[in-house]
Amino acid sequence: MLSVKPYRGSRDFYPPEMRFRKWMFSRLRSSVEQFGFEEMDAPILEPIDLYLAKTSEEIVSTQIYTFKDRGDRQMVIRPEMTPSVARMVAGKFRDLKKPVRWYSIPNLWRYERPSKGRLREHWQLNCDIFGAPDPFWADLEILHLAVTLLKNFGADHTMFRVKVNDRRIINYLFENVLQIQADWWAPVARIMDKKEKIPRDEYMTMMIAAGLGDAQIAAVDLYLENPARFFSDHKVSAPVFAEMENLLVAATESGLRDFVEYDPSVVRGFDYYTGFVFEIFDLTPGNNRSLFGGGRYDHLLENFGIQSANAVGFGMGDVTLQDFLESHKLVQNPDKLVHVYLAVFPDPSLLPHALNIATDLRKAGLNVEINLGQKKMGKQFQEADEKNIPLVIILGEEEIKNNSVQMKNMKNGTQNQVLLGNLQESIQSEWEKIYAAKN
Amino acid sequence: MLSVKPYRGSRDFYPPEMRFRKWMFSRLRSSVEQFGFEEMDAPILEPIDLYLAKTSEEIVSTQIYTFKDRGDRQMVIRPEMTPSVARMVAGKFRDLKKPVRWYSIPNLWRYERPSKGRLREHWQLNCDIFGAPDPFWADLEILHLAVTLLKNFGADHTMFRVKVNDRRIINYLFENVLQIQADWWAPVARIMDKKEKIPRDEYMTMMIAAGLGDAQIAAVDLYLENPARFFSDHKVSAPVFAEMENLLVAATESGLRDFVEYDPSVVRGFDYYTGFVFEIFDLTPGNNRSLFGGGRYDHLLENFGIQSANAVGFGMGDVTLQDFLESHKLVQNPDKLVHVYLAVFPDPSLLPHALNIATDLRKAGLNVEINLGQKKMGKQFQEADEKNIPLVIILGEEEIKNNSVQMKNMKNGTQNQVLLGNLQESIQSEWEKIYAAKN
Repeated sequence: MLSVKPYRGSRDFYPPEMRFRKWMFSRLRSSVEQFGFEEMDAPILEPIDLYLAKTSEEIVSTQIYTFKDRGDRQMVIRPEMTPSVARMVAGKFRDLKKPVRWYSIPNLWRYERPSKGRLREHWQLNCDIFGAPDPFWADLEILHLAVTLLKNFGADHTMFRVKVNDRRIINYLFENVLQIQADWWAPVARIMDKKEKIPRDEYMTMMIAAGLGDAQIAAVDLYLENPARFFSDHKVSAPVFAEMENLLVAATESGLRDFVEYDPSVVRGFDYYTGFVFEIFDLTPGNNRSLFGGGRYDHLLENFGIQSANAVGFGMGDVTLQDFLESHKLVQNPDKLVHVYLAVFPDPSLLPHALNIATDLRKAGLNVEINLGQKKMGKQFQEADEKNIPLVIILGEEEIKNNSVQMKNMKNGTQNQVLLGNLQESIQSEWEKIYAAKN
Repeated sequence: MLSVKPYRGSRDFYPPEMRFRKWMFSRLRSSVEQFGFEEMDAPILEPIDLYLAKTSEEIVSTQIYTFKDRGDRQMVIRPEMTPSVARMVAGKFRDLKKPVRWYSIPNLWRYERPSKGRLREHWQLNCDIFGAPDPFWADLEILHLAVTLLKNFGADHTMFRVKVNDRRIINYLFENVLQIQADWWAPVARIMDKKEKIPRDEYMTMMIAAGLGDAQIAAVDLYLENPARFFSDHKVSAPVFAEMENLLVAATESGLRDFVEYDPSVVRGFDYYTGFVFEIFDLTPGNNRSLFGGGRYDHLLENFGIQSANAVGFGMGDVTLQDFLESHKLVQNPDKLVHVYLAVFPDPSLLPHALNIATDLRKAGLNVEINLGQKKMGKQFQEADEKNIPLVIILGEEEIKNNSVQMKNMKNGTQNQVLLGNLQESIQSEWEKIYAAKN
């Protein structure tokens, strides 16, 4: 016998879960479109070359789903959307009106050990701006978009915080201050990220194991604990520092004062980013995890022969977002909407008549479920009730003779005879009562 | 350098193509929901066992995308949705309220030689009814749904025709009249399907090569050319014949007279179907191809240990539907909707002020594109114009002093000063003019 379970780490979306997903995505879509973004999509299969250049080594070697197609071509089920977006922007770079504002909500696959918040298949909202005349303005617009996405679900500044940094500052730390080789940047950054979460001596042991001496460890301490002092002591390039400061001032003055702060520990991996980076954290005590993040990646199109494009964006996963919305009680899961259940007495000769009524109501824009052969009227009422359909239209031989139907309001139990010519109007007035009773 | 092309047989959806897809799918969704169907989804990866039982031999052996995952499990990128739907219905069979009316619009993959109307990746609307009290009523409801889908795009009876048949009639022909072995049914059915398209002698040669004698070929002729006579001559089981006739009568009486006809040549493959089958044909002269089809498949859940479920449904591909809509000029491709372009004079100190205005307008539900650092106002107007945004709000230092903006209607060239307090109202009234001018 076949298993009824979905593949490990993936999800079945039964109608209730699908309604939730559609509600969440439709909120995301309307927020993003308020910022003038346009939706796009790419095939879920891409050749592996697309990922070899930019995607992190760890993902490519251990996490991607890859196989040879029947034409011996090495294909990948996309683990992230950015390479496909870059390919498509590059493909029409001359013709696209700049700045390009694109978004997508693709499903992505990674071979991971499934755990809470980490699945093999997840959906991800991707938003990117390419070719802004002034990248700084685009960075700020992206910050506003990221904050607005959560605010439009009803989240406020007590629930999340945006932490910003600049990759050029981190590069300066590693290259000019610590002076360590590029292949040690990522491991050292990972240890830095643990600094606040582990005992000091454990942290020291790890830093020493990574080859850092006392002066280097002290410089990292200064950077993380007193970045302003670090910037002046170590002469971090004035324009980069000024840009970070300008971004914070402009964010503050444009309504993001309570949402955005500088955080030297934000790194966002070493794969793409070239400037501004940010990460949004859940402020729930005890669940202070990263919700999503992004930043500037200006070299994204270089592998396609395009040098000049600046780019900034982010990706937000559906599993993390759903957890956030649920833990902050921001979920509004709409019911299935069926306006009318059409109950029909068990006489086959009534069926065409019933279908004609259903067709008329549907033409008028109503959602109509029709009885599909249930003989007992009591069972039909029960079906409407179980499916939470508040209005039942009853059709029997007697009613056909009188060119009418019975209409039963399942919420208050009232039942009336209605002439067919008045049916749409009567349904509308019953539904107005039902809405009024709900609110 | 990396290629910018999508994988062979798949499509990139740039924003214009994506708008089209969203328009088409949203029309499909609202039509299907008028029939009380609920949307669901399943993972795109399923274990191969799911397809070995029911999917056609040809698809499994030559067309599926299959590979071993890193845990050595043989996985498939779904070539069709029905097995996943069956798995999910079976998984909650006791708890689901019957009849179950589900739909989905999954992307499907088949390794095919790409040609017009045949791609490796396509989307497919799937609609199914499981567990109807009377399957006959469900068959009729599915017919109505299939017709309504096309009618709701504006198609009429001059553009398409639904041809119906019953698999039990075809089984009777093969088993009781022709008396040929089951593994020859499919090849003979394929030759029958060619009968009207090839010369008679070529047809005869093929039938003889398939092992049919004169009496058998004559019986097939009678079946295809005069089915009523065939039914009486060959004593086709009365209930099956009566059911087909009842379906046609009920379809006729419920508004489908001009849309539905009996056609003995409709078979729909030998994999799933157990009763009623239908296929919808484009009536365009010279392009008389099948658009989509479906039917009854009552044994679908048996591999999951569920014997009692009846089921009927169909799948409709997006590529074929798009061709149909385009060839009959039924496409209404909506523009990107941006209400306002916010032009800002090239002074960085204006940026927070501009963002505050954008935030207010977005809060009011408007879609707003803001200038991202373009220095010249002329270029900003040009950008709005190229993107077909009809309303530009202009913000400069002078305007900030007066607590106002300039508002320019790009369609008629008028420009006015508007106080910030009146901005939303003024935008609304400008947009009313723009809509009025359009219609």
